[in-house]
Amino acid sequence: MREGHDLFHLAIPVYDLDATVAFYVGMLGCKLARRYDDRVTLDFFGDQLVCHLASSPDAPAEPELYPRHFGVTFRQEHDFRSLLRLCRERGIPFFREVDRRFPDLVEAHDTFVLRDPSDNLIEFKHYDDPRMMY
Amino acid sequence: MREGHDLFHLAIPVYDLDATVAFYVGMLGCKLARRYDDRVTLDFFGDQLVCHLASSPDAPAEPELYPRHFGVTFRQEHDFRSLLRLCRERGIPFFREVDRRFPDLVEAHDTFVLRDPSDNLIEFKHYDDPRMMY
Amino acid sequence: MREGHDLFHLAIPVYDLDATVAFYVGMLGCKLARRYDDRVTLDFFGDQLVCHLASSPDAPAEPELYPRHFGVTFRQEHDFRSLLRLCRERGIPFFREVDRRFPDLVEAHDTFVLRDPSDNLIEFKHYDDPRMMY
Amino acid sequence: MREGHDLFHLAIPVYDLDATVAFYVGMLGCKLARRYDDRVTLDFFGDQLVCHLASSPDAPAEPELYPRHFGVTFRQEHDFRSLLRLCRERGIPFFREVDRRFPDLVEAHDTFVLRDPSDNLIEFKHYDDPRMMY
Amino acid sequence: MREGHDLFHLAIPVYDLDATVAFYVGMLGCKLARRYDDRVTLDFFGDQLVCHLASSPDAPAEPELYPRHFGVTFRQEHDFRSLLRLCRERGIPFFREVDRRFPDLVEAHDTFVLRDPSDNLIEFKHYDDPRMMY
Amino acid sequence: MREGHDLFHLAIPVYDLDATVAFYVGMLGCKLARRYDDRVTLDFFGDQLVCHLASSPDAPAEPELYPRHFGVTFRQEHDFRSLLRLCRERGIPFFREVDRRFPDLVEAHDTFVLRDPSDNLIEFKHYDDPRMMY
Amino acid sequence: MREGHDLFHLAIPVYDLDATVAFYVGMLGCKLARRYDDRVTLDFFGDQLVCHLASSPDAPAEPELYPRHFGVTFRQEHDFRSLLRLCRERGIPFFREVDRRFPDLVEAHDTFVLRDPSDNLIEFKHYDDPRMMY
Amino acid sequence: MREGHDLFHLAIPVYDLDATVAFYVGMLGCKLARRYDDRVTLDFFGDQLVCHLASSPDAPAEPELYPRHFGVTFRQEHDFRSLLRLCRERGIPFFREVDRRFPDLVEAHDTFVLRDPSDNLIEFKHYDDPRMMY
Repeated sequence: MREGHDLFHLAIPVYDLDATVAFYVGMLGCKLARRYDDRVTLDFFGDQLVCHLASSPDAPAEPELYPRHFGVTFRQEHDFRSLLRLCRERGIPFFREVDRRFPDLVEAHDTFVLRDPSDNLIEFKHYDDPRMMY
Repeated sequence: MREGHDLFHLAIPVYDLDATVAFYVGMLGCKLARRYDDRVTLDFFGDQLVCHLASSPDAPAEPELYPRHFGVTFRQEHDFRSLLRLCRERGIPFFREVDRRFPDLVEAHDTFVLRDPSDNLIEFKHYDDPRMMY
Repeated sequence: MREGHDLFHLAIPVYDLDATVAFYVGMLGCKLARRYDDRVTLDFFGDQLVCHLASSPDAPAEPELYPRHFGVTFRQEHDFRSLLRLCRERGIPFFREVDRRFPDLVEAHDTFVLRDPSDNLIEFKHYDDPRMMY
Repeated sequence: MREGHDLFHLAIPVYDLDATVAFYVGMLGCKLARRYDDRVTLDFFGDQLVCHLASSPDAPAEPELYPRHFGVTFRQEHDFRSLLRLCRERGIPFFREVDRRFPDLVEAHDTFVLRDPSDNLIEFKHYDDPRMMY
Repeated sequence: MREGHDLFHLAIPVYDLDATVAFYVGMLGCKLARRYDDRVTLDFFGDQLVCHLASSPDAPAEPELYPRHFGVTFRQEHDFRSLLRLCRERGIPFFREVDRRFPDLVEAHDTFVLRDPSDNLIEFKHYDDPRMMY
Repeated sequence: MREGHDLFHLAIPVYDLDATVAFYVGMLGCKLARRYDDRVTLDFFGDQLVCHLASSPDAPAEPELYPRHFGVTFRQEHDFRSLLRLCRERGIPFFREVDRRFPDLVEAHDTFVLRDPSDNLIEFKHYDDPRMMY
Repeated sequence: MREGHDLFHLAIPVYDLDATVAFYVGMLGCKLARRYDDRVTLDFFGDQLVCHLASSPDAPAEPELYPRHFGVTFRQEHDFRSLLRLCRERGIPFFREVDRRFPDLVEAHDTFVLRDPSDNLIEFKHYDDPRMMY
Repeated sequence: MREGHDLFHLAIPVYDLDATVAFYVGMLGCKLARRYDDRVTLDFFGDQLVCHLASSPDAPAEPELYPRHFGVTFRQEHDFRSLLRLCRERGIPFFREVDRRFPDLVEAHDTFVLRDPSDNLIEFKHYDDPRMMY
């Protein structure tokens, strides 16, 4: 069972702390919790995202969605649409535009994917049937 | 603000679905939500963990904790201790034993790290001061 | 008063653990919590269902709805409809199709009944007036 | 996920409605929600228990705990102890006295079993580790 | 502030315990919590109503709404309407039919009044503006 | 079930609005919600208490606790003790001092009774076993 | 994270306690919690507002909205509209009429400003996108 | 009644945005929600604090606690103590050290006051009796 007072904790590499704050706080509307020389911690939709400063790869490849990405599955379609509108109004580029997956199955859901300045991919989803959220 | 009805969504690579279920469900006590040919989805401490079947690296390296790992930050020390006891009673090997970080700072917290069969690292934490959870 | 943190606990006989998991987890969308040689425990709509392996009756009779069955009474009609759609989309056979009972009384409710592979009957209900849920 | 506003629904056979009310309401402290000629419905620790009047078996056998029984798994040990004290103070006979199961495992829990006037068995449990409640 | 786990407690005189249970439980859909020789206690819309057996007045007068009555103020109009429909479908006589009070003021609310078998008056209300509920 | 957003509504007679406000707000710590010429409405421990101005009886009798009084049943003993201390520190006279009722039964509870300036009696209670609160 | 049981505490100067109570309680519908010779404390939309009696400035200037004011940001537009209607029905003068700010940005919100009898300015807001509430 | 999803909104003048962020985010542990050229918005203990850039007074006077200040009243003493410890460990200077006010009255509470870089005073409190929080 999900205890509302516990937090999911995710640590990811980023290559530039300022760009990270500009993207997550300035664009996506997350809150900056703490900033250190080697990392920033964010209140990412209520959970903790720790962005560790890492050296950028010499030859950055195009990121791939599978198998590694993270994001939020919204319970209410309204919240999903609301975030989608924010991304459009602020001109955040999409890695993958909004799309409907498995439209004929119980697993049907809407999804879009963003890409942060360090090529981490962030997926936001909403399922028609909330029982499929897990 | 963290809305209790939304879920954090994390997708990670795994190399063997059976071993993944055995570890997360059988050992760690997570719940299996769905199983497909190419992935399993788990109720991981209330959030969604999707384990995508990926090919194992030819030359597996020793995993490193930074910059990439995930886990749970518990609000109550009791829940942290309770999970620690489960790990010990079930003989789950630790990647990093329980440790106290920044003991003299407000950021003081207890932490231990597990390693799943696909070398994903999972950190569990508890902060003395819950305001540092983010 | 219903305490959200307590669980209803129901133990029922099943004749085949694999078939049980296939039905409750694979079809109905429940979560598998634990599996042992002689039982599986399920997160059944938030409560605990323990399925104990029992020997199948020699002469199985057609199951009867009364007096013994279990299920869920949904507060929101939307959740009832959503589960009904899941059953149809996944082709789960109905023991009793969706029906309206006591349409002229305050006790009016919609209901349908499923049958698990071990002939346990599962009723899902939604009352027009939530005060009749008990 | 357990939605606080949905109810678990269990229907069981009873052989005497007055005795049923006397046991569940008068002794165990459940609340009587509705009474009809052929059944009573109870608020059983927050969920719905429907007791259908059935004919008593000609040759009643000693009831067996497995595979069929129901009850409540308490989140707080205090609530488990409190109910146990009520049973003792009111002299409710135990089918199985309070006992500790799997004391050396993570699944360790305290449990006792009551028997209603129609030989339905009711188990109350409390796990040391709440993650084992399912 | 209203603490969800505390209960309002109201004790009233009644002249006949059976008639009291028939009215509050059988008609109005409240739950019977406890019955003693000299009183019954009810779960009255979530609060505690204790009905003490008293001797009926020799010359019962027509009850008056002011200054003494009790009831429930619903937050949602839907719940108010739902109870109103229950009263009509079950033929519970109204002491005062549904009415709109102070229609031009912020204090505007809908209300109806029932009379229990012992002439206690019960008012149910719904305010347009929930800030007027107190 | 007690819906946190609904309010219990109790209307009582009082003989002096200023004295009523002085007692409930100034002494007992309730909040004044609204004041009119003929009544005041109070946030009484989270529920609505409406005090209607009535003419004082010519020959006031000593009030009796049964069958008519009202109050609060606290879930936590701490809250009961806290209010008791407030009454003592502010010198509010007791109609009936704190007392323990039914000490040997499951119904055991602590209780004290206050008397407002219009002779309405107010009982505050705390049960050892919260299942007896109804 | 906002803990529902903590209160924001704001202390402001007022020049007349009676006028303050008349405005906040009588007009705006706040609740009076405590009154002393030199201050009143109010339940202001669930938080604590302490109005300290101060001497009125000799030459009162027209108040300015920036940089100092306070108020409430509503999550639901309905609650914002409901308060706006209350202000109109009760003829509370507006310091700044309802207005839409930043209509083309994600920060778009509706707002109106009241002025209390001591020239404190109170702003009420509702954002289209609740993620902008902070 | 305090609706958990609404926010208190307070706007204050500050003379330096960087110093403001350093104090509220870096020292006090608040979260930065948004930053503009002329203001920053903070998640201040769950409510919204907007810090508007204003010109510093020519002749800054020693700030006075009355009548104008703001802060948080904690429900749990533990949270008050926890913040006090944070202030000490991080060496935040106190405007007024921790103190006990009205020790012999029901209004007894602990309090300490901080001063932000723009001379705004921030009071944190904890009352022995939570009913005095308003």
